[in-house]
Amino acid sequence: MQPSATLDLSLELLKQPSVTPDDHTCQDIISKRLSQVGFKIEKMKFEEVDNIWARRGSEGPVFCFAGHTDVVPTGSLDAWDSAPFAPEIRDNKLYGRGSADMKTAIAAMIVATERFVERHPNHNGSIAYLITSDEEGPAKNGTVKVIETLEARNEKMQWCLVGEPSSTTKLGDIVKNGRRGSLNAKIIVQGKQGHVAYPHLAKNPIHLAATAIETLCSTTWDEGNEYFPATSFQISNIHAGTGATNVIPNTLEITCNFRFSTEVTADELKARVIDILEKNQLDYDITWNLSGLPFITPVGDLVKATQIAIQKVCGYETELSTSGGTSDGRFIAPTGAQVIELGVLNATIHQVNEHVNVADLEPLSEIYEEILVQLLT
Amino acid sequence: MQPSATLDLSLELLKQPSVTPDDHTCQDIISKRLSQVGFKIEKMKFEEVDNIWARRGSEGPVFCFAGHTDVVPTGSLDAWDSAPFAPEIRDNKLYGRGSADMKTAIAAMIVATERFVERHPNHNGSIAYLITSDEEGPAKNGTVKVIETLEARNEKMQWCLVGEPSSTTKLGDIVKNGRRGSLNAKIIVQGKQGHVAYPHLAKNPIHLAATAIETLCSTTWDEGNEYFPATSFQISNIHAGTGATNVIPNTLEITCNFRFSTEVTADELKARVIDILEKNQLDYDITWNLSGLPFITPVGDLVKATQIAIQKVCGYETELSTSGGTSDGRFIAPTGAQVIELGVLNATIHQVNEHVNVADLEPLSEIYEEILVQLLT
Ligand SMILES: [Zn+2]
Ligand SMILES: [Zn+2]
Repeated sequence: MQPSATLDLSLELLKQPSVTPDDHTCQDIISKRLSQVGFKIEKMKFEEVDNIWARRGSEGPVFCFAGHTDVVPTGSLDAWDSAPFAPEIRDNKLYGRGSADMKTAIAAMIVATERFVERHPNHNGSIAYLITSDEEGPAKNGTVKVIETLEARNEKMQWCLVGEPSSTTKLGDIVKNGRRGSLNAKIIVQGKQGHVAYPHLAKNPIHLAATAIETLCSTTWDEGNEYFPATSFQISNIHAGTGATNVIPNTLEITCNFRFSTEVTADELKARVIDILEKNQLDYDITWNLSGLPFITPVGDLVKATQIAIQKVCGYETELSTSGGTSDGRFIAPTGAQVIELGVLNATIHQVNEHVNVADLEPLSEIYEEILVQLLT
Repeated sequence: MQPSATLDLSLELLKQPSVTPDDHTCQDIISKRLSQVGFKIEKMKFEEVDNIWARRGSEGPVFCFAGHTDVVPTGSLDAWDSAPFAPEIRDNKLYGRGSADMKTAIAAMIVATERFVERHPNHNGSIAYLITSDEEGPAKNGTVKVIETLEARNEKMQWCLVGEPSSTTKLGDIVKNGRRGSLNAKIIVQGKQGHVAYPHLAKNPIHLAATAIETLCSTTWDEGNEYFPATSFQISNIHAGTGATNVIPNTLEITCNFRFSTEVTADELKARVIDILEKNQLDYDITWNLSGLPFITPVGDLVKATQIAIQKVCGYETELSTSGGTSDGRFIAPTGAQVIELGVLNATIHQVNEHVNVADLEPLSEIYEEILVQLLT
């Protein structure tokens, strides 16, 4: 195996069990590397969340790398073939929680920046980093607050590259130039507790809601459009019952999420869900959380630089897409910045045995470096 | 208040905190009274569970009183208006844990037997008692084991009266002459964990199972028959999801229960559930627990004697029913015995401030005595 600075730094970050919102020293590791190549580091801690804003240069335009050091929980350790925070290479794949989402991308950004700065110490504009440890969690004290701080002092970025794993079958095959909206709902269906032997004295909220759930799961919400795939609906949690096998539960609790296109609004989705609940005559309570509106970055400087860089390093054309999850890009795009997402393959993110191809790490770093060359030299 | 031998013995039993499986000397109190009127007492202890088999006479037919001295836990003591094991009479009601389920019935049986034996010392056949302290718990070392012992030595009973609280609005209004079967299932539906934004890379077990759940909840399993209400199906627990709102869960777990009539067998129900799961092409695992087969005691000697006794003592007709929960009758019926359940009002069983009407105690004892008269003289 070739020596790889990106792999080395990835291993260092992957050893930190930085489950949201615990950064677990990842940002110290990052800050040390960046300050060695001339970045001014600004720690921005909001409540329990560590964030950094780092910048090299004081002129515009500002090119910003954005990312997160936090990872989702591991789930049952038994399900992993190797310990999630003891990164391990097997069959040319690097295993570990956060290997795909998104510690290797952060490592690739830093190594790319180090090489770029060495070759172009007097580059145009500024390079910046916006790193949070609250992307996978509530996302209340991370990028949102950093952006608020920057906006308050009128510090703008022109271009932002978020290192989320955008690739699907080979490195760089997909670049995200927008994101669907995200709308969460928590639905509580009220029943009446009782004994399973006396169902006529109780109301089983699972039975009452069964048809509504089936309808929600089988509804087509829209067909999408040229920028966006069709709106999707997923139930992420469903819970009822105390564990006793002979007790009809009192309530049923459902958590669900829409990823929605610009063909439908959040208010329209809310109205359609409520209509399904009402038609089934449920006694329910619903709480909505709109966690992101859809956004789009049309083809411009940033998209073009990225297309050229991928062509140069990989030898093939990339494709623009708006599918997939929300990212902190949703908080950055409203400032007027051009925002794209580009990172490693996303096939195993948030899963057990999360991994990346070791062979993709240096090329990703080269793509990032070439984007800097395109935009800042 | 009239002096009442049934009330006096009830108070003595209710003072014992005999939470399953602890008999707490109740069976000693019972044995002493029965041996004074000519019963031969056989203690049958299985592991930690005390049981007694008592018999007066060596001839057939055998009439058996069956019951349990154990009670369910009290729950929070604060919720009780008087201490659960310090029986207290207020407003002509006797309060205490076990007052309805079923220490007053045991007291009524014994007082009835004492009077009957005094008046009919040379009655036909035999009178027996099967008393356990493991009815409210696992029910593994109680009635089941006593019946196994009796069957092994070919000791049969013709008639069995279980003193469970069968009455609903007035004493003796309902007699249980059978019970539905009870079949539990635990179903685990396998999906594939993933991110809600990439549903095509995951398999949401809630969505996969939605139609099957809807079908299970809306199926008519049978129409019941003259003895049984329609078979009922209830989902008591449903769980999927780790709490994270953006993760598609890996598995869905459902616990459900059938209370079934003699129109369908447990095997038929299993086959029909599996058919629904298969038709929905689910990847599932199912574990069954058959906790009781349905049984029925058609109208015959025992039912007729009971109907006559209730008419004589109460002045109204009783109604036969097979509804409600399981009881130890399910273990006795398979021996070929006629089995009925008759006791006090069941409105407060297993609840805080469990109580019975003091005025019902002597009449219950008279009903029990009259049944003995009908069958053994
Ligand atoms: Zn991420
Ligand atoms: Zn009972």
